[in-house]
Amino acid sequence: MADLYLVLLHHPVLDKTGAIVTSALTNMDIHDIARSARTYGVRRFYVATPVKALRVLAAKIMEHWETGYGSTYNVTRKDALSLVGLEHDLDSTLLTLEHATGMRPRLVATSARSGPDRTPCVELRAQLDVRREPHLIVLGTGWGLAPEVTERADVILEPIWGPTDYNHLSVRSAAAVILDRLRGKR
Amino acid sequence: MADLYLVLLHHPVLDKTGAIVTSALTNMDIHDIARSARTYGVRRFYVATPVKALRVLAAKIMEHWETGYGSTYNVTRKDALSLVGLEHDLDSTLLTLEHATGMRPRLVATSARSGPDRTPCVELRAQLDVRREPHLIVLGTGWGLAPEVTERADVILEPIWGPTDYNHLSVRSAAAVILDRLRGKR
Repeated sequence: MADLYLVLLHHPVLDKTGAIVTSALTNMDIHDIARSARTYGVRRFYVATPVKALRVLAAKIMEHWETGYGSTYNVTRKDALSLVGLEHDLDSTLLTLEHATGMRPRLVATSARSGPDRTPCVELRAQLDVRREPHLIVLGTGWGLAPEVTERADVILEPIWGPTDYNHLSVRSAAAVILDRLRGKR
Repeated sequence: MADLYLVLLHHPVLDKTGAIVTSALTNMDIHDIARSARTYGVRRFYVATPVKALRVLAAKIMEHWETGYGSTYNVTRKDALSLVGLEHDLDSTLLTLEHATGMRPRLVATSARSGPDRTPCVELRAQLDVRREPHLIVLGTGWGLAPEVTERADVILEPIWGPTDYNHLSVRSAAAVILDRLRGKR
């Protein structure tokens, strides 16, 4: 059974015009996705931003919940945030992960856009059962991952669809749905 | 095929000590759940709070995205927020819904706690295919719905589990996962 890892990228991502930008850190992303990661057995959730000041800010927020006042106020949140690691970008995340596991991780990109060679979640779920290498699921902020990230991926997941032609989920919601499709108990 | 409706209750809900309280409105709840509702074909998403000042605040936020600056900045958000209705409480929501549809809705409670007579999502999904009355899914803020709400429900959904013993999802994540289990395209 392959271990799951998550990374939330703030660069390179798209803005609404399709330009490549660095997005700001959103506090709620860290909390919500950490809680989903903890629920679905993700080993580690990396928050990657090249902006040092934002990594320092994230570290402060986590300190509040892990050892500060929040750690006694809300124990389940402390538990979830202990999964979070701060990284510079995708490359530093891959290095950290390879160092920790001794294996080259399989890179799984997510996208709300359709395209060729998309893998349905149910297919990746079956692969996770028989594979051994760590799987790193890459989530994009802003208007989604830049093509240069998607192009590096070993797997690109199919977009999430309901019965409508609208699929603009928040990254928080998309992360929860993807993890549920990959690891949810039915 | 039964139509789906959502209501997010801010009273009566539990706080972390188990006391019944009124929770504050969270802007991100409205945005995230509206986008999930739109994705999964929910007919209307009611935000219910007995605090009039908070309903006025919510109306202002929605106005920004529906007719103000936000409506041209982000069209997909406008599209999602057009599903939102503001209500006082569960009873006013039921009245509105019954008035709009001419049918008594079936009340579906959600809970992170286990208990007797829980219905798995997959079972409700099958029921939705053959039933005709509107189904109102009730989401709780804070530490979850007060027992007096759950006791009125026709259906109580099983908690969401991954492969761990932790299930403290945010209400935003839980809403997305429940809708995906009920209406997601596999």
